[in-house]
Amino acid sequence: MSRRTEPVSELVARARGGEPRAVARLISLVEDESPLLREVMAALAPHTGRAQVVGITGAPGVGKSTSTNAIVKALRADGRRVGVLAVDPSSPFSGGALLGDRVRMGDHADDDGVYIRSMAARGHLGGLSWSTPQAMRVLDAAGFDVVLVETVGVGQSEVEVAGLADSTVVLLAPGMGDGIQAAKAGILEVGDVYVVNKADRDGAAQVARDLRSMLALADRRAGAWNPPILKTTAQSGDGVPEVVAALDEHRSWSEGSGELQRRRERRARAEIEAIAVAALRSRWSGVGEHAELDSLAAAVVAGESDPYAAADRLLGD
Amino acid sequence: MSRRTEPVSELVARARGGEPRAVARLISLVEDESPLLREVMAALAPHTGRAQVVGITGAPGVGKSTSTNAIVKALRADGRRVGVLAVDPSSPFSGGALLGDRVRMGDHADDDGVYIRSMAARGHLGGLSWSTPQAMRVLDAAGFDVVLVETVGVGQSEVEVAGLADSTVVLLAPGMGDGIQAAKAGILEVGDVYVVNKADRDGAAQVARDLRSMLALADRRAGAWNPPILKTTAQSGDGVPEVVAALDEHRSWSEGSGELQRRRERRARAEIEAIAVAALRSRWSGVGEHAELDSLAAAVVAGESDPYAAADRLLGD
Repeated sequence: MSRRTEPVSELVARARGGEPRAVARLISLVEDESPLLREVMAALAPHTGRAQVVGITGAPGVGKSTSTNAIVKALRADGRRVGVLAVDPSSPFSGGALLGDRVRMGDHADDDGVYIRSMAARGHLGGLSWSTPQAMRVLDAAGFDVVLVETVGVGQSEVEVAGLADSTVVLLAPGMGDGIQAAKAGILEVGDVYVVNKADRDGAAQVARDLRSMLALADRRAGAWNPPILKTTAQSGDGVPEVVAALDEHRSWSEGSGELQRRRERRARAEIEAIAVAALRSRWSGVGEHAELDSLAAAVVAGESDPYAAADRLLGD
Repeated sequence: MSRRTEPVSELVARARGGEPRAVARLISLVEDESPLLREVMAALAPHTGRAQVVGITGAPGVGKSTSTNAIVKALRADGRRVGVLAVDPSSPFSGGALLGDRVRMGDHADDDGVYIRSMAARGHLGGLSWSTPQAMRVLDAAGFDVVLVETVGVGQSEVEVAGLADSTVVLLAPGMGDGIQAAKAGILEVGDVYVVNKADRDGAAQVARDLRSMLALADRRAGAWNPPILKTTAQSGDGVPEVVAALDEHRSWSEGSGELQRRRERRARAEIEAIAVAALRSRWSGVGEHAELDSLAAAVVAGESDPYAAADRLLGD
């Protein structure tokens, strides 16, 4: 397959014009950690900051994909353009998401106002993958009004990715185990909007009650956002417009209160740090005279040094 | 609760003598990220490298705790001292594991040859928590023959922790969803010994067959370890001595082949890097003139800079 090499500026211009193939190509550059990324990100920068970035998370089985789909529909009915990133824990085997784009497009395959992409949550050891924030940046610059990021709500880094959105929806459902499970998964802390999905099933009211009591235990500062608890049946779309309304309300509140700016700065900090750390890591692991980390590790294994002393040496302290 | 401050050297000496309270105190220092840790780790270093570090992982519901318990029993029957770290995804709410030590001690509460500890897998954003490798180091230096590290096999960092052990047991069970689920969880790549637990249930033979076909797809270099697939009923202990035997065999193989040394160096590298990165991160986020990261993040949010350019500035490139 030959692919014409196109100048980054042209690709960015086409993506900004809403061309799905240009958007797809830019996100592929992100996933491949292309050397062109520096140039891409520099070209995108002036056009970012407009989209509403919404994280959607919850344990497996709560109906995340169905809910994401239903939220996309509700946003489309409202005339908004929507980009979706579905972030899966990656497998070193597959090197990527197991569900391809096609599986996910479903109802929206012919709609130019929707772009859906499955991404691998590829992480370097000890480092959050920054591919997700970069892909958000691509969709933001491409003019999508809303960028939905669907993550599996298990594992520290998945929860953290969700927490980096402008607004985060935490999904629960009856029959998914008790509240302790939710608390263990760490997802109870990151929600701006809580949604009990499968509200037509037994136990939905109980899940909402349990959730309410658990949230009541959390310390909230005066003037803080009070996360609503909504009920949906994503399959039929019941309750979904209310979720969109709650997200809009959170957006207004967070814009007015300065929380939006704070979160975006936090996201940018995480992104900058991840890039800086990766750069250092590749220096530390470099070949020849730069492979200092290897000899330090060998000394630690031999019991001749300890990890703190080795880290000091690495940093030249 | 007042606690006599005791010199680190004394605490380390008592831990090395096998005193459970001294071991517990050292692991608490690890969990609290105590400033004493540098001294502790330096004092422990010469006494590390003897224990066999075994990771045990698998999706929720496969019987990890029961299996860990059964393996502990089998090792005890063999006269070996065993330390167990049960690593839970942490909740920012609880700041720690939800199941305390007492819940887990069960059968071994009165046995001085067993030490069991639940730990929070607390991670900094973008960084693997190095509390688990440090706690391994404490148990190793305290003279436990085997250190079992039980992790939830979901989420990138949990899988990575499991992969950092000398030997890793991956548990599966019938009725836990198809093989794709296991592949998605990323746990199929890290096993040295695969165990199909709940072997008395329908479908166990099928799980083993599926697993065998999936493993057959993996590229293995000549002379590489060929991971066995064993069956257990952890509840009754059936098949568990065979797991211990397979682990011993893997240990001999990995010692002879150099794999043990390679893994330990990899673990040490990850630990050194994590400590170095945390040190840098705290410099970058420091107050006053050092809060460079904050102003860089603000520039990125404003679209005046991009994350790569900001990372370059941060690193002084």
